[in-house]
Amino acid sequence: MKEELKKILNELAELNPDMFGKDFLLTWEKSEDDLKATMAVAEALKHFYENNIDSRVFNGGLGVSIFRDNSTRTRFSFAKACSLLGLSLSDLDEKKSQIAHGETVRETANMISFLNEFIGIRDDMFLGAGNTYMREVGEALDDGHKQGVLSRRPGLVNLQCDIDHPTQSMSDLTWLKEYFGGLENLKGKKIAMTWAYSPSYGKPLSVPQGIIGLMTRFGMEVTLAHPEGYGLIPECIEVAKKNAEASGGKFTVTNSMDEAFKGADIVYPKSWAPFHVMQRRTDLLNQGDDEGLKVLEKECLANNAKFKDWECTEEKMKLTKDGKALYMHCLPADITGVSCKEGEVADTVFERYRIDTYKEAGFKPYIIAAMMFMNRFKDPKDMLEKIAKRNSPRVGV
Amino acid sequence: MKEELKKILNELAELNPDMFGKDFLLTWEKSEDDLKATMAVAEALKHFYENNIDSRVFNGGLGVSIFRDNSTRTRFSFAKACSLLGLSLSDLDEKKSQIAHGETVRETANMISFLNEFIGIRDDMFLGAGNTYMREVGEALDDGHKQGVLSRRPGLVNLQCDIDHPTQSMSDLTWLKEYFGGLENLKGKKIAMTWAYSPSYGKPLSVPQGIIGLMTRFGMEVTLAHPEGYGLIPECIEVAKKNAEASGGKFTVTNSMDEAFKGADIVYPKSWAPFHVMQRRTDLLNQGDDEGLKVLEKECLANNAKFKDWECTEEKMKLTKDGKALYMHCLPADITGVSCKEGEVADTVFERYRIDTYKEAGFKPYIIAAMMFMNRFKDPKDMLEKIAKRNSPRVGV
Amino acid sequence: MKEELKKILNELAELNPDMFGKDFLLTWEKSEDDLKATMAVAEALKHFYENNIDSRVFNGGLGVSIFRDNSTRTRFSFAKACSLLGLSLSDLDEKKSQIAHGETVRETANMISFLNEFIGIRDDMFLGAGNTYMREVGEALDDGHKQGVLSRRPGLVNLQCDIDHPTQSMSDLTWLKEYFGGLENLKGKKIAMTWAYSPSYGKPLSVPQGIIGLMTRFGMEVTLAHPEGYGLIPECIEVAKKNAEASGGKFTVTNSMDEAFKGADIVYPKSWAPFHVMQRRTDLLNQGDDEGLKVLEKECLANNAKFKDWECTEEKMKLTKDGKALYMHCLPADITGVSCKEGEVADTVFERYRIDTYKEAGFKPYIIAAMMFMNRFKDPKDMLEKIAKRNSPRVGV
Repeated sequence: MKEELKKILNELAELNPDMFGKDFLLTWEKSEDDLKATMAVAEALKHFYENNIDSRVFNGGLGVSIFRDNSTRTRFSFAKACSLLGLSLSDLDEKKSQIAHGETVRETANMISFLNEFIGIRDDMFLGAGNTYMREVGEALDDGHKQGVLSRRPGLVNLQCDIDHPTQSMSDLTWLKEYFGGLENLKGKKIAMTWAYSPSYGKPLSVPQGIIGLMTRFGMEVTLAHPEGYGLIPECIEVAKKNAEASGGKFTVTNSMDEAFKGADIVYPKSWAPFHVMQRRTDLLNQGDDEGLKVLEKECLANNAKFKDWECTEEKMKLTKDGKALYMHCLPADITGVSCKEGEVADTVFERYRIDTYKEAGFKPYIIAAMMFMNRFKDPKDMLEKIAKRNSPRVGV
Repeated sequence: MKEELKKILNELAELNPDMFGKDFLLTWEKSEDDLKATMAVAEALKHFYENNIDSRVFNGGLGVSIFRDNSTRTRFSFAKACSLLGLSLSDLDEKKSQIAHGETVRETANMISFLNEFIGIRDDMFLGAGNTYMREVGEALDDGHKQGVLSRRPGLVNLQCDIDHPTQSMSDLTWLKEYFGGLENLKGKKIAMTWAYSPSYGKPLSVPQGIIGLMTRFGMEVTLAHPEGYGLIPECIEVAKKNAEASGGKFTVTNSMDEAFKGADIVYPKSWAPFHVMQRRTDLLNQGDDEGLKVLEKECLANNAKFKDWECTEEKMKLTKDGKALYMHCLPADITGVSCKEGEVADTVFERYRIDTYKEAGFKPYIIAAMMFMNRFKDPKDMLEKIAKRNSPRVGV
Repeated sequence: MKEELKKILNELAELNPDMFGKDFLLTWEKSEDDLKATMAVAEALKHFYENNIDSRVFNGGLGVSIFRDNSTRTRFSFAKACSLLGLSLSDLDEKKSQIAHGETVRETANMISFLNEFIGIRDDMFLGAGNTYMREVGEALDDGHKQGVLSRRPGLVNLQCDIDHPTQSMSDLTWLKEYFGGLENLKGKKIAMTWAYSPSYGKPLSVPQGIIGLMTRFGMEVTLAHPEGYGLIPECIEVAKKNAEASGGKFTVTNSMDEAFKGADIVYPKSWAPFHVMQRRTDLLNQGDDEGLKVLEKECLANNAKFKDWECTEEKMKLTKDGKALYMHCLPADITGVSCKEGEVADTVFERYRIDTYKEAGFKPYIIAAMMFMNRFKDPKDMLEKIAKRNSPRVGV
């Protein structure tokens, strides 16, 4: 066994995760050990992949994805996670089927779950709805399993909801762990999660909420910056505060991008729609009020336009620690002069960190697979050892 | 080997099925032994699944589905059956491709069949068309195989046509076998296949036709009930009559829901469009006569509305054997006050049997897999024994 | 080991292909040994399939397809090639995602490529765009791999572009190799690649260009025939000329279908749009000029109509060698009186060669798989021997 893998397994041996049979819906519902174990398993799976070791633990079986919004990155990450573990993928296309709430959710959740191992759900359009829907599915599955309909209760993975984007934030954290050479090195590091200007509106809140909810767990100094009126869901702010207190980190909110950037080790400039706008938007979407939606969009874009200086420029980057903070983004970024006229980030800044953002994204398939792995195996360390011992080639005969 | 599996294998040893290399298009083209063997294989595959035994018998290879109508349940059941046996799934999306009749069918059938093991087809919209289309595909495959185009002639599975819905009715029968503790216990049981009111029109006839065509095979007393004018395809009625005679069962048609329910052990209340309406609809669809279709819909809904009392209420349930008949449905049901204002079944009745209907649906993936298994292996018992002996874990290393 | 396989492996032993880690974009970028080795591997995979030998060399891993145009044949061929080698398939549906040029291509290429083995691309609508796009993707992958984003650089397979259709032409060649009993027997054979009338316009040039670019490699006498004004991309004509010179074959262009058919051993009559029309069309598509496109279509159809006598009739077939030339087509053909009123080929001619065209198409899944195989394994012969030695059943336990 290679040293790298031994190190990961030793790390895992120190932890007491409690994720067997549990859904992954919000990072703040998970213990520190849960999060650390998930990252360790992700790293082990990456190790297997890169060393041409077959990591399949399912011999047949389905993973089902439900995307209630367009997606390339997460869709492919889920597909890859399934393939990495040996699952076949089925996508529930709601245009071809039809899923709603109430009895339909209860029934459909069971109907798609015979012989299924996991359901990955993305539902981030409606405030107050996405996470609720996932829990509704979860309850239907609990009931179906308890009553003997499902011999196995499929695990749920939140692929982005209105509240959190745990597969994104966990990939980001694993990337930071690698970049700074260990979780312990993140203690005291300053990260600026800041709003940035974009010529579009209605971008979900789940990324900034997920970042402040997770990075405050590991002793980092997290600054949330946004123009006045661009606040996040208040409950998520409370979560971040409590986490920072518990972990010995810090959590600050400011209305100045410069202040957030000052001395930062990491910057994460990204656009989002204000919480109260998302709420109005949700109401209008529910009412099917197209006219109202157009008015709201116009109003919001006009408001956004007041904050065009919230751009991650070379000047702003100079404010960061030694002028060399790590730039992060969940992609795709609105790059000034490249993907739009004026956007979240200057082209030269983005280009300098482009490969870093790609690497950041590269952890997602492994993180999703690790969430599944932790849900399915009581003793993940033992299972990883079995994979290593089997030592069958991923490519080749 | 567990007792449960031994029992199934013993059952199989008594039978002389003749399904090797044969399509599964209509249950009444199959012998009693064929049907029994299919159920036994389905139960064995379920046993493997629930005991974490890998049941894959294909190491590579495709299963192709063609859905000419929307579908969630059957689509997922087919996907799961493929995954259970080790096949990859490809869906022929006719919007992305284009398939029609004549030379195109002949050609497309061959083009999608290189390296394919099975084709599952759902085509239930046009009366006189669905089953015919399946046979056209089958003939093209026969020819392609005979002429050396296809080294293997893929098997066909009818996933619902205008005449029969064999994967549904066979799942229903397997469920009844389990519920009543054996096929022999179904002898003399009274089943009421009755029309029920629904606020929609144009529902296919394949479920009631499939049920009366299959349940009459095993000595049951089958009553078909519907309002005057809501008859099924006459040939299917003939099939049911003959089957009942041969099996020592009974087949009655009535225009009274109460009569059908009286003393029934099982009730299956479900809406469908009258045979002659489906024929007019088929003509209008073929002519592309949208105006005519609207007129027909209006006329039919008005006619349906005369029979709103054809609802499976608590009162009606009291008429059944000890007031405790088993309620069945292929799902989704039109539930009064839940999925519609007035529908096929009262909410309290449905809720009491909800889990039962889910269990009923749960047999479908196994039944589809069993149909494939029987088509592919000359000695299914031997192959099941090999799977048991291999005893490799479905989940794990 | 069977004689047939031994013969293939011996053939392979004589060759020095250089395809490891290289994309397959144009046949004329490949050496003669590359092409011969690809065919040999395709034949070996076919041998395994037909002898029930599991040929999977990937234990997990994805193949990604990007279809920027509708497709049934190639889509299924790619799916089968993936399944044959053990890969799961993911389709990048650009309607669900969104891919364009510039930064987006660079980013998306990397995002879909974590844990991916191959990307198959079809992009044949815009002249000057399809092949360029593939190379842009390739460069992004090179960069991602070099910079540590991708631990494995996925291979690219051209599933049809504006210039070449290598999976088609290579399948066609493998079919000819089988039909005439060996590549050496193709020397001096006369093949007529001719334009034919079709009641539609805008058919891509990649098939005729691919055929004249490939068949001239093996000493055949290739005649390209088309009405005046229906020329191909000039660079492709140059390629064909040079190839013919180098291989000791012949390449002629004529404006007479009869001349091309005279004494031909093989005829390949197929419609396409003139090069300069495709260029105008590309400009109009880029400008989104719908009105202009309608005018162009009308003009072109009127022009096509002048050449209705460019049909592969029984009379024309009599001009060929002993009246028995092999008829080829990439399918679907426009068959007079069958799929259209007046088309590319007479119904009796097509019917006589129908099964041959199906067999021709049947090589495509194997050819695609072989292109992947050659890209992935340095010593393909050794890997084929390992598969043969493993000798595990494709179907069965």
